Amino acid sequence: MDNNNLGKHISGQFNLELEDVRSQVMAMGGLLEQQLHDALHSLQTGDQDLAKKVMATDRKINAMEVAIDEECTRIIAKRQPAASDLRLVLAISKTTADLERIGDACVRVGRTVLETKGGSRKGTLVSMEAMGRHAARMLHETLDAFARMDVDAAFRIHKEDVKVDGEYEAVIRQLMTFMMEDPRSIPGILDVLWAARALERIGDRCQNICEYVIYFVKGKDVRHMDTDDMEDLLR
Amino acid sequence: MDNNNLGKHISGQFNLELEDVRSQVMAMGGLLEQQLHDALHSLQTGDQDLAKKVMATDRKINAMEVAIDEECTRIIAKRQPAASDLRLVLAISKTTADLERIGDACVRVGRTVLETKGGSRKGTLVSMEAMGRHAARMLHETLDAFARMDVDAAFRIHKEDVKVDGEYEAVIRQLMTFMMEDPRSIPGILDVLWAARALERIGDRCQNICEYVIYFVKGKDVRHMDTDDMEDLLR
Repeated sequence: MDNNNLGKHISGQFNLELEDVRSQVMAMGGLLEQQLHDALHSLQTGDQDLAKKVMATDRKINAMEVAIDEECTRIIAKRQPAASDLRLVLAISKTTADLERIGDACVRVGRTVLETKGGSRKGTLVSMEAMGRHAARMLHETLDAFARMDVDAAFRIHKEDVKVDGEYEAVIRQLMTFMMEDPRSIPGILDVLWAARALERIGDRCQNICEYVIYFVKGKDVRHMDTDDMEDLLR
Repeated sequence: MDNNNLGKHISGQFNLELEDVRSQVMAMGGLLEQQLHDALHSLQTGDQDLAKKVMATDRKINAMEVAIDEECTRIIAKRQPAASDLRLVLAISKTTADLERIGDACVRVGRTVLETKGGSRKGTLVSMEAMGRHAARMLHETLDAFARMDVDAAFRIHKEDVKVDGEYEAVIRQLMTFMMEDPRSIPGILDVLWAARALERIGDRCQNICEYVIYFVKGKDVRHMDTDDMEDLLR
């Protein structure tokens, strides 16, 4: 297993600094999981207060992104890391950017809930439940793979995204049917469509983070690589 | 003017390496401008071959992203830059990621053209022309601000994005009207909607790149900062 050789490369104060920034990423990830959970719950129940909480959390997420990225830059300037240490810092910085965008997706879902007053489009929202749960599970597993720098898990999650994409296509087809049956519902359903789109994008962000885990462990940038080539690399 | 103090900080071989990677970014930007131009032209004319060319260009763009990012990592590891040199390398790396996403937006537009056979939704596509031209101009000016590390231009372009957002809202309202008038057109118009969304996102990517220019010149991360605070910083 290549999954975790952090201990070999780093030591002392530098080690502490890297551990600290890693734990900041995990804290940010934890907050995001809660934010996504709240967003999905508000979507199901129409809870407007919860949706407002989701929107408010975004400020914290944004501040965490800036703080972690600043710390990464400081570490590079001060410690001048090379090889896998440098890859770790760069992977952390990029992961943080994708996590922040998952926060934006939660905000998009929250906004749809706030704009869907009276639960008139409840049927359309329910169609997204399975996809939402799937995206939440992918986020959870991605954070877990990141915490352990587990390249096998990262590859497995990476392949999982096609399923979220498939669920998304099904949701879009269903929303299209609703619109065609009742054209007056179109503006409201478009709001729901943006939320569906946002949830689907969470899967893409998780894929990106998995690519950074593979980059750190294997030293190879696998962005834009197809699944077969990635499998060859990891074998 | 704070716009360009590259020469002060770097010298010799390191200077050449930085210049080389900057010119790679400019080459990538030039290819993207052509790709966006082709995407918009194919949208106007329904030229399917041109749309296919747009799709094919994406591979080149992706490869450029990976190559530039690799070079940035190599420079950090080998040259151990600090202060503004480090900020420059990080700004380049982040800019490249946003440029690659502008390429994805062009692909999305190309796909809409390929799926819009026979020009049946020509009226809906025309509604996007103004927004497309605006996005293209924003990209051009952003690349220019990046080339000159011109913080004033970056701030000006950053503020410009609200106009693209406004044009986007108008396009969406128009597409909604088309859908309500003729529900059978809904699937086709949704394709157009994704293209409109992609063009709107180009403005957001340009905003991000402008933030990296400000970060390089001013040493301050302005992501998530509101316009007034940004103005105070730049004064």
